[in-house]
Amino acid sequence: MRERARRKKAIAAAVGAGAEALVVTHGPDVRYLSGFTGSSGAVALVGGRAALFTDGRYTTQAKAEAAGLRLVIDKRSPAVQAVEWLAAEGVTRCAFDAGHTTVAAMEAMKKALPAAVRRSFLVASDGLVARIREVKDEDEIALMRKAAALGCRLFEDVLEFVVAGAKESDVAAQLEFKARMAGAEAMSFETIVASGERSALPHGRATSAKLPKRGFVTLDFGVLLGGYCSDMTRTVHLGKVSNREWDVYHSVLEAQQEAVARVAPGVRCGDVDEAARSVLRKAGLEKEFSHSTGHGVGLEIHEGPRIAAKQEQLLEPGMVITIEPGAYLSKQSRSLPKSASGTGLFGVRIEDMVLVTAAGGEVLTAASPKAWMEL
Amino acid sequence: MRERARRKKAIAAAVGAGAEALVVTHGPDVRYLSGFTGSSGAVALVGGRAALFTDGRYTTQAKAEAAGLRLVIDKRSPAVQAVEWLAAEGVTRCAFDAGHTTVAAMEAMKKALPAAVRRSFLVASDGLVARIREVKDEDEIALMRKAAALGCRLFEDVLEFVVAGAKESDVAAQLEFKARMAGAEAMSFETIVASGERSALPHGRATSAKLPKRGFVTLDFGVLLGGYCSDMTRTVHLGKVSNREWDVYHSVLEAQQEAVARVAPGVRCGDVDEAARSVLRKAGLEKEFSHSTGHGVGLEIHEGPRIAAKQEQLLEPGMVITIEPGAYLSKQSRSLPKSASGTGLFGVRIEDMVLVTAAGGEVLTAASPKAWMEL
Repeated sequence: MRERARRKKAIAAAVGAGAEALVVTHGPDVRYLSGFTGSSGAVALVGGRAALFTDGRYTTQAKAEAAGLRLVIDKRSPAVQAVEWLAAEGVTRCAFDAGHTTVAAMEAMKKALPAAVRRSFLVASDGLVARIREVKDEDEIALMRKAAALGCRLFEDVLEFVVAGAKESDVAAQLEFKARMAGAEAMSFETIVASGERSALPHGRATSAKLPKRGFVTLDFGVLLGGYCSDMTRTVHLGKVSNREWDVYHSVLEAQQEAVARVAPGVRCGDVDEAARSVLRKAGLEKEFSHSTGHGVGLEIHEGPRIAAKQEQLLEPGMVITIEPGAYLSKQSRSLPKSASGTGLFGVRIEDMVLVTAAGGEVLTAASPKAWMEL
Repeated sequence: MRERARRKKAIAAAVGAGAEALVVTHGPDVRYLSGFTGSSGAVALVGGRAALFTDGRYTTQAKAEAAGLRLVIDKRSPAVQAVEWLAAEGVTRCAFDAGHTTVAAMEAMKKALPAAVRRSFLVASDGLVARIREVKDEDEIALMRKAAALGCRLFEDVLEFVVAGAKESDVAAQLEFKARMAGAEAMSFETIVASGERSALPHGRATSAKLPKRGFVTLDFGVLLGGYCSDMTRTVHLGKVSNREWDVYHSVLEAQQEAVARVAPGVRCGDVDEAARSVLRKAGLEKEFSHSTGHGVGLEIHEGPRIAAKQEQLLEPGMVITIEPGAYLSKQSRSLPKSASGTGLFGVRIEDMVLVTAAGGEVLTAASPKAWMEL
């Protein structure tokens, strides 16, 4: 059980933020610190003590999942229960996550506190547990390897359904069915199948649109396996390719490979982003790369660190990040020649999950080829 | 387009709460008021004017979905953009939803405001738009009928996979695959397939457990279709039934039918809950019915009104609610006879979606039988 070690880090972070205790209500943080996976719960930490608060729906589950924590079952809000317990234990300053606590929830906690401590009890903090979660421990890395490997198998298995005339949503259905049958709890986010002109949409979730005879199909998907998210993107091509499509694909691929090669401990996140961005800039595709290069991934699909322009944060061993540059050519695009295939609207994105190791970076989704794929 | 009428109601509610303007950031509320379905956006309303704020990922989509609103694309937080615009328009008091705004987001909005209005600008309100959404308009009811009907078809189609030895997660996989192929955007919540002893868990999401030769299987699932959620539960039995199982099933069924029969405009939500609860009380199953009778459903799987003990809210025509009593027999259960089948742990839940009409209630999931089903 790694939870005890994680709780030690969390309470140390709270003390570092000027509090004696910590209350955590964000689901992934609760799971990380306690093992409890129910939809409503709070973890309270003070000194070496830890308690989990939830409601009667989860009695059996909480006992099984969060062994070793004091468990309190009550109908009231877990956060309110947690701060009442902490106040009764003599705590006077308790950190909470301002980024995951609603104004209403904060007011409810305040109201439940003794008048003597109410004004100064709650210490707003930002992502204390999220920052600990950025660096994965061995148990987490093992789970993420499995999730990434499953993603790669699914991509291979779904290719037979990527044919002209198939609906995007049917491709997504096949992918999600295979994921479930392989043991995934769920998809880690809404599956993106963006084909033809729709590949020019960075967030083109699968619709009833049919795959074209000629054009790109971008598949961006992930599974949830053992609580951890995978995330990968491949872009394949149907039918005859234009020179422009070929060139854009290979610019994105080069950008992606340059950024992956840059991953190593101590490297600035902004420098990894720049490794991808500079390739696309040279190819005249700077404006067409309209998002950041990547993000951390773990219990949540989007975690820290941000792999984006000017980010000063340094990579550390144990971080798992995505590297996912893309180029999206729209009607407004300066780079769009009139001779491009069809309407000329298309996009390409290529994404891997990368583990930061002591030596550099290890691509967890290496089993899926990134070379040009024509179906 | 109903969005204009909805925005009129929303700004009226904000004025009723003592503000001149309203900022909305909760995704389903943004969609309800603007049509925009992107993952990050804010709607600002003042007088008859409305603006939508989002980022560059969503330019094309926002233009297509939210025609008729002023559209502003910017990298900064949509909520910050929205309050800045409102302040520039001369607004001095703006309502926001304290239940869906984090402390950090509120502080960011405050920081962006001119010092002269900063202290009094943001007026905390609670569910102004959520309350409007409780009563569905005709467009919404049409969509919810379709979602509910699809749920019923899926239940019928998945029964062939409900056989002893099948994994719960495989049943869920088949259900979810059929949902996708039938056009559902997604499931509306994590599919519950709880079999044998696991049927005693009210929230028994599908696991790798195998369906038993003898025992209950509870299927609780819903689809997302056209943005709207369906939600239904059926409990079927595999193999030879015990007298106790038969009796508990029929007590839950009677409770469910009594509550459905009680649905009509002007009826207290607490009285609908009591209609179910009193049947189970008489059957000695009061403690085994450990949750409330139901909830509103719409763009979100859990909306108002709450159909729970002592709720004073009155039903109104156009509300869509679930009616889902259950009984869960655990080791601690006083009602558990030693002669019950197997370990004696089992549970039953039966759930319909019900539209409140001018005359009473219309069951939207009536196509799925609730009579005892032995497979």
